Amino acid sequence: MAQLIPANDRSDPRLDDFRALSTADRRPDRPGGRGLVIAEGTVVVRRLLASGYPVRALLGVPRRIEELAPDLADVPVPAYVASAELMAEVVGFHLNRGVLAVADRAPQPPVARIVAGARTLAVLEGVGDHENLGALFRNAAALGIDGVLLGPGCSDPLYRRSVRVSMGNVLRVPFGTVESWPDGLKVLRDNGFKIAALTPRPDSVPLGELRGEKVAVLLGAEGPGLTDAALDAADVAIRIPMAPGVDSLNVATAAAIAFYELAGR
Amino acid sequence: MAQLIPANDRSDPRLDDFRALSTADRRPDRPGGRGLVIAEGTVVVRRLLASGYPVRALLGVPRRIEELAPDLADVPVPAYVASAELMAEVVGFHLNRGVLAVADRAPQPPVARIVAGARTLAVLEGVGDHENLGALFRNAAALGIDGVLLGPGCSDPLYRRSVRVSMGNVLRVPFGTVESWPDGLKVLRDNGFKIAALTPRPDSVPLGELRGEKVAVLLGAEGPGLTDAALDAADVAIRIPMAPGVDSLNVATAAAIAFYELAGR
Repeated sequence: MAQLIPANDRSDPRLDDFRALSTADRRPDRPGGRGLVIAEGTVVVRRLLASGYPVRALLGVPRRIEELAPDLADVPVPAYVASAELMAEVVGFHLNRGVLAVADRAPQPPVARIVAGARTLAVLEGVGDHENLGALFRNAAALGIDGVLLGPGCSDPLYRRSVRVSMGNVLRVPFGTVESWPDGLKVLRDNGFKIAALTPRPDSVPLGELRGEKVAVLLGAEGPGLTDAALDAADVAIRIPMAPGVDSLNVATAAAIAFYELAGR
Repeated sequence: MAQLIPANDRSDPRLDDFRALSTADRRPDRPGGRGLVIAEGTVVVRRLLASGYPVRALLGVPRRIEELAPDLADVPVPAYVASAELMAEVVGFHLNRGVLAVADRAPQPPVARIVAGARTLAVLEGVGDHENLGALFRNAAALGIDGVLLGPGCSDPLYRRSVRVSMGNVLRVPFGTVESWPDGLKVLRDNGFKIAALTPRPDSVPLGELRGEKVAVLLGAEGPGLTDAALDAADVAIRIPMAPGVDSLNVATAAAIAFYELAGR
């Protein structure tokens, strides 16, 4: 059982992991200078507790910590119980979700392991916006994508804002970094995947015509789109049929449509 | 041709429409207390100029006003040319898109007229979040939805933030308010529409099985979802098949998937 500890002193050093959260993604004192994994709200805290990340502590108002009691039964970490006012003073802003958990980062699974067990994957290039990245993971989880591979220019799925926008799904959908780009995508073809690049280019085929038992959807940031190198590494170019004169969809939305189409086949 | 007028004085009363934009959605001096229609950036300003809304004026840095010159050729309105600094002083924050246009509101088309010419429609209940509403209009435009009907609890598509998130597509996709809810939906059935409510309820059928020549997709806010009254007014309940244990998609994303499915039939 988590140890419930009343917290009454805003300067209590045991609360240091929860301080100044608006800048907590940079932690020069931590490995790689990257912040801890921070979960906000009961839904996301539950996902963090269910994930493999080593939880360090919780901080919450009494009601939220009580709600989480069943989830904390087997979790031997301190749970600091505080007023909303003290939480706001520590965190640096008012948190209307009332509970936080922090965990250490953990090594990501090797790309080969993610690919080995998968049927549908997303592969991202240049998705640098934390909210788009979080939304994409949320859609991936909802629509049954087995994993996400990150190419160059992608932001860190464990940034606080990505965790929140993903509703904690960055903690559930396995992801890993493709170290050599785009050559490292060879692992997909070696495992029987068809690499399908989503692009508005005129030589692309409508998404609904995509065939293949195992598919990896290659997605670029809205605006610049995929690089030529990434497009060249794909087996097929696919597109979402769109109304004339309309610009592209948001990348997470386009991804959702592709994931939906793949899930239904 | 628009009249180009150098603006050098931050207190120039001719710039009053552009002041304090972060609160410009409330204008007690305007009909209904609602703000003007505000377009930010060249893409959205072009859409405003192409819309039926009566444009009052533009304000922009020289480079952006020059870019818009072809669009302004037949538009007899003042275009105030200012430095980025002066614009920021007037507007109240730094605008990285460098150009604004304001227009008067105009009466929305009657629901009957929107329905008459349409094949696919979206009908919203309780979509109160401005960003979700804007994103939904963006997706509606991209995926060929002919119009949006607004039920109770929806926010105003012409709020500044909705206009921006929609990329100006609230100015292109016709919308109107259903005055009597849900009885007013009768106009849809009278015009041969099938009303399909998107809901995770277990008695719903997968979206891909939806049949019907003319379809109106009924969407509620994520979280509460559609009211029982709205569900009862629908002809069929449809769902997006989702992975087990995953919560709902964002409403604009769910809408995009439904619009995609409808567009492809």
